[in-house]
Amino acid sequence: MWRPSVNSRPGPVTPDDIARLDRDDPLAARRSLFALPEGVIYLDGNSLGALPKSVPARIAQAVEQEWGVGLIRSWNDAGWYPAPQRVGARIAPLVGAAPDEVIVADSTSVNLFKVLVAALRMRPGRRRIVGERGSFPTDAYVAAGVAELMDAEFVAVEPDAVADAIDERTAVVSLTHVNYKTGRVYDMAGITRRAHAAGALVVWDLCHTAGAMPCDLNGCDADFAVGCGYKYLNGGPGAPAFVFVAQRHQAGLRQPIAGWHGHAHPFDFVHDYVPAAGIDRMLVGTAPQLGLLALEEALKAFDGVDLQQLRRKSEQMTELFIRLADQELAPWGFGLASPRDAAQRGSQVSLTHPEGYAIMQALIARGVIGDFRAPDILRFGFAVLYVGFADLWNAVAALKDVMATGAWQAPEFSRRKAVT
Amino acid sequence: MWRPSVNSRPGPVTPDDIARLDRDDPLAARRSLFALPEGVIYLDGNSLGALPKSVPARIAQAVEQEWGVGLIRSWNDAGWYPAPQRVGARIAPLVGAAPDEVIVADSTSVNLFKVLVAALRMRPGRRRIVGERGSFPTDAYVAAGVAELMDAEFVAVEPDAVADAIDERTAVVSLTHVNYKTGRVYDMAGITRRAHAAGALVVWDLCHTAGAMPCDLNGCDADFAVGCGYKYLNGGPGAPAFVFVAQRHQAGLRQPIAGWHGHAHPFDFVHDYVPAAGIDRMLVGTAPQLGLLALEEALKAFDGVDLQQLRRKSEQMTELFIRLADQELAPWGFGLASPRDAAQRGSQVSLTHPEGYAIMQALIARGVIGDFRAPDILRFGFAVLYVGFADLWNAVAALKDVMATGAWQAPEFSRRKAVT
Repeated sequence: MWRPSVNSRPGPVTPDDIARLDRDDPLAARRSLFALPEGVIYLDGNSLGALPKSVPARIAQAVEQEWGVGLIRSWNDAGWYPAPQRVGARIAPLVGAAPDEVIVADSTSVNLFKVLVAALRMRPGRRRIVGERGSFPTDAYVAAGVAELMDAEFVAVEPDAVADAIDERTAVVSLTHVNYKTGRVYDMAGITRRAHAAGALVVWDLCHTAGAMPCDLNGCDADFAVGCGYKYLNGGPGAPAFVFVAQRHQAGLRQPIAGWHGHAHPFDFVHDYVPAAGIDRMLVGTAPQLGLLALEEALKAFDGVDLQQLRRKSEQMTELFIRLADQELAPWGFGLASPRDAAQRGSQVSLTHPEGYAIMQALIARGVIGDFRAPDILRFGFAVLYVGFADLWNAVAALKDVMATGAWQAPEFSRRKAVT
Repeated sequence: MWRPSVNSRPGPVTPDDIARLDRDDPLAARRSLFALPEGVIYLDGNSLGALPKSVPARIAQAVEQEWGVGLIRSWNDAGWYPAPQRVGARIAPLVGAAPDEVIVADSTSVNLFKVLVAALRMRPGRRRIVGERGSFPTDAYVAAGVAELMDAEFVAVEPDAVADAIDERTAVVSLTHVNYKTGRVYDMAGITRRAHAAGALVVWDLCHTAGAMPCDLNGCDADFAVGCGYKYLNGGPGAPAFVFVAQRHQAGLRQPIAGWHGHAHPFDFVHDYVPAAGIDRMLVGTAPQLGLLALEEALKAFDGVDLQQLRRKSEQMTELFIRLADQELAPWGFGLASPRDAAQRGSQVSLTHPEGYAIMQALIARGVIGDFRAPDILRFGFAVLYVGFADLWNAVAALKDVMATGAWQAPEFSRRKAVT
């Protein structure tokens, strides 16, 4: 059940408070960079980021001119060939990495597979992957699959038990920095230090971090990271993912999917595989240019953004949403799945409710788009480049109305869709 | 050195012959479905297929409407979620497969990795992958990488030695049906029969087959196949790839990259991996929708195409090109790398020349686009949906002129580009 926040300021949040927050928002002007449909409050940028306005023209150019007219010549002339490195270098500062430590390739799951196998190979005497029970499922599935393949074991524990589960048997710790359901944030520096002290490596999944809040991979001495291009980075549906390998690990790294684009000289067409010198060895097949170029264009929305301002706005938003929920939703049986301490929270607030699925569908029908995660989570993500404080006010008002009117009980809202 | 074809009809090919071939071409009207730039003869559809005219509008709709307005809802409402299966079912008839045996996912290299590991797991007492020395490098790289990972060995032999190399130690034979350099075609039925007789499985790489010539995976009792979306299928740069798993193998298949989209119930978000029932278990991460939808639209160019007509035209084209080369290029020191027997040849003709790189660059500068493959191959691919017989006449005339004038000796043509 709902427990009001002990951190809430006394007194109700007023429309004046909201207006002041929007007026004082240094990132407010970024919203104009995005094409948001009329009548929609979009709080699902943690599932699929909104469309940056400049992307359609960029993709039209890529399709009609670069593909249609340039044809094969565009691999050289339009800069397709170095796009994985170029887009990786754009992502690097958002996650505290050097430009030559990040490359865009494949999906998050495939990249996770590559780095987990590589990490196990770096610790041949150890056969344990430690992860979190309750992390995003693909992280668990891929880790279990790698463990089976490598004659290792995958040990998944509760979040609070992770640090203690790391010992001299641990080859690699694989964690999602921000939990997809709750928004809870791991202490990247502390866990990494703990792992290194035990002689283990760490892989950070940054799917709910990159573009949502800063992190400092190199400041934390991180080993590997993976992340997604289609959430807070706004790269579009199924945008390619990124992978980070700390510079110190690159030369010795042996990832298992030895595709030609990871070769030192792919166009020499020699028989034996020789991995490329640096981060390029994480490449496998031909890069998916349409998705890659859309992601590149989308990332321009972050140009010049002060990541500390981004984080401050995100904390203000999650704090405000929780205060509004405290204030407006108390009678309706919601719980709070996200930490009340802003420092432990990513850029989302998750509520729980046994009728969460139908409630979310009813809310979406009113134009407030969040999402549902089984079994009972209503998830609201705040992509601070295009979400304003008034959006949160209106979203909570709509949610209150859905509950007060019983609108969520309409039969059409309980029918499950393929993608929830 | 050049050896004139013993199969050539007596007498020179004349412009009248060319005009008659184009006039009688039942596929000639398909050319109007493609956006081909002015002044270009495009003989590189085996590297990057040309742009189908309907693709730009489809992608604009996907970006502006489905992503921009539909946002996350489009996973259900715009049919994004079942797109990998839907596009796979479109490819299936081009390769002799049933609709539920093909799915679109990842890159060719990643798919090859998945099926090779799965195949080795199906033959636990055998530890050998047999392949071809001289196949496309990524096939060799991936196979060697899988062998290292699975404590197996990769044995690569010359094409003529493949059949004899298959024995009771062989777990899986991995071959490219049409060789990327020479266009030589393997006997799919014969090799598959030989492998099965020895108790081995077979993976066919169809990168230079799908859309270029029919093949009959199920008629040959094939086990697995992979292939590329961006060559003869015209899916665009870095289009996603496809993978075929024979129905009889699907239920027991264990592929190693256990991503959430291959789960039986991805949106239940349960901790343990349960593979999906059929071909869906070959999926890994979130599907790259822009590339996938471009490929889907591009495949419509094959709607209603009689694959026997497609093959007949392709044979006519390769035969004509060789006859024209015999007739026009004899003085210039070219060799023929492709088989002279049309039945053993895919939809390409490859010439050799020690100065092949510079010659190809000079030819491209004249608007005739083929490509170069190290060390000495000039490659000409004939995508019969948009290449006409007059194109071949003009291409050979341009090549003759490049040689006769010595144009290829200009210094700018010897400077290597990143992608050759």
